Amino acid sequence: MIGKKTDKFYSLYEKERAKFEIRLAASLKGRKPYSLYKPAAYILEEGGKRLRPLMVLFSVKAVGGKFSDAYNASVAVELLHNFTLVHDDIMDNADKRRGRPTVHVKYDINTAILVGDSLLSIAYENLLKDCNGNAKDIFAAFTKGLVEVCEGQSLDKDFETRQDVSLNEYITMIEKKTAAMAEMCCKIGAILGGGDKNEINALAKFGRYLGVAFQIQDDLLDIIGNEYHFGKSVGGDLVEGKKTFLFIKALEKSNGVDKKNLIKVIQNKGIKPEQIQDYKNLYLRLNVLQDAQLEIKNYTNKALNSIKILKQKEDRDIFTWLAGSLINRNK
Amino acid sequence: MIGKKTDKFYSLYEKERAKFEIRLAASLKGRKPYSLYKPAAYILEEGGKRLRPLMVLFSVKAVGGKFSDAYNASVAVELLHNFTLVHDDIMDNADKRRGRPTVHVKYDINTAILVGDSLLSIAYENLLKDCNGNAKDIFAAFTKGLVEVCEGQSLDKDFETRQDVSLNEYITMIEKKTAAMAEMCCKIGAILGGGDKNEINALAKFGRYLGVAFQIQDDLLDIIGNEYHFGKSVGGDLVEGKKTFLFIKALEKSNGVDKKNLIKVIQNKGIKPEQIQDYKNLYLRLNVLQDAQLEIKNYTNKALNSIKILKQKEDRDIFTWLAGSLINRNK
Repeated sequence: MIGKKTDKFYSLYEKERAKFEIRLAASLKGRKPYSLYKPAAYILEEGGKRLRPLMVLFSVKAVGGKFSDAYNASVAVELLHNFTLVHDDIMDNADKRRGRPTVHVKYDINTAILVGDSLLSIAYENLLKDCNGNAKDIFAAFTKGLVEVCEGQSLDKDFETRQDVSLNEYITMIEKKTAAMAEMCCKIGAILGGGDKNEINALAKFGRYLGVAFQIQDDLLDIIGNEYHFGKSVGGDLVEGKKTFLFIKALEKSNGVDKKNLIKVIQNKGIKPEQIQDYKNLYLRLNVLQDAQLEIKNYTNKALNSIKILKQKEDRDIFTWLAGSLINRNK
Repeated sequence: MIGKKTDKFYSLYEKERAKFEIRLAASLKGRKPYSLYKPAAYILEEGGKRLRPLMVLFSVKAVGGKFSDAYNASVAVELLHNFTLVHDDIMDNADKRRGRPTVHVKYDINTAILVGDSLLSIAYENLLKDCNGNAKDIFAAFTKGLVEVCEGQSLDKDFETRQDVSLNEYITMIEKKTAAMAEMCCKIGAILGGGDKNEINALAKFGRYLGVAFQIQDDLLDIIGNEYHFGKSVGGDLVEGKKTFLFIKALEKSNGVDKKNLIKVIQNKGIKPEQIQDYKNLYLRLNVLQDAQLEIKNYTNKALNSIKILKQKEDRDIFTWLAGSLINRNK
């Protein structure tokens, strides 16, 4: 869930999210073969924030369009997102997602490969339904998101075996792996809502900047998150030896024994769970949690500055609430 | 290669194929990250008949367009085809393709998954370049091909564990897995070349029927093919226990001991290489090779009947030559 129940836009979000769930489930209904679309439906049942489709819908509204202008496009972006989840889970050897077995664990790798491919195909099919004269722009934006998310995933995989990832390289990676998709959602919404060039660019930028902030927040939650709320073990990124914002920043700032201990994480491809507290203390000493918070704030501000040109105060307020809820989230 | 050197259209095909190879290689040039696009380029270097892109180009010409109207779209269909090859090779546990290690063998499964995804993303990117006012129709045709090829692959996988696949089900499977792509190639070419509704439908039908004929011919080549030319071991489908046209037809026509022996192939998930000749003899006795040849002729005639409406004799001749070369091919 996004935000708190008492928030002004909470019920708008939840109402549209609930309606979206029905359309998402309907997108695979009655399709054959069952052997393909049943496991495809399985991953869609997982729920989640449905952030990307809601970003599409709010972007439509922000340029004066109706939510219904992008009902199918919002399904398309969620299907695209789930395509990446299914394939990434195979590559990351992840057993669980939101507490349920991943597709390749519940079924098998071959099924999961094909389910991913299929979700992507149905994504394009849904996208088509909302396109008219603007088909080329819509497909260009959607495809750019797809190209970047593949490149980002490849960079992320490269980082696993590299010892010298810079913070710039890290930002490039998350721009492609996470932010490009958020940019695409806002852009598609703005085009489908009939926005002008300025509005489309503004919303695209908002999405991209917010996407970067979102990912750094995700890295931060691995350390400061509440296990119950976040749904993942705290310190999991350290255990896996992932090169997160925090880790790369710590490596850049450290010297002597601290640096040696961080390099050990790379060499040993992670740490033992009992070492998490030591590394958390190291992060605190190096002040990298604050660095991350600053960077999140920085990107969020850039995002919010981009949408100052939106005509209606309510739309600016919705995005401000959305951004605030995301960077204050605990899962 | 398609046809013989002495054929009237051989040099036209080869000339356009050679030019196509350059454009195909260029489609990934200079792209980063190298870790993604190098293995992606590897599969494209394999060569092959490049049948699908050439079908796009000839369809453009057949409705009065120029080859250059679909240079990028022809790259797109070949990229889409290679996406299916990379993912199918993982699913089929295939070690080699055209005598070279498959992508997941040369690299690893994770790389191959991502390479497939990426080829598909670049396919859409290329398709965009040739689209103008017709973008929606082009994307609809391309996406329909993608949806069907995923469904066809799923059906094919299902058949592996099923004992009761009917000939109708088999035809549906190859329509989706093979023929839908050929249909899409001709349709896209016809749209990009500026064809009218009748021409677009005629060429789409031609592609679909020819695609079915092509696949049954592929099944037939497994038994009557020359190992050297075909590039696969003769009888490989029997060894793997694949439910081909021949096998399903034989099962339908057989009785008594013959039927029992065929059911054994299913139960044992294939036969031993030394049993190939026995089963080849059984196929001959049941006359299923001739049945396949008849079906191939039947679908080829349907294909050729579809394009009788094409205005220029030369275009009808090109497709007639292409169809003839395909059903007389030995690899």
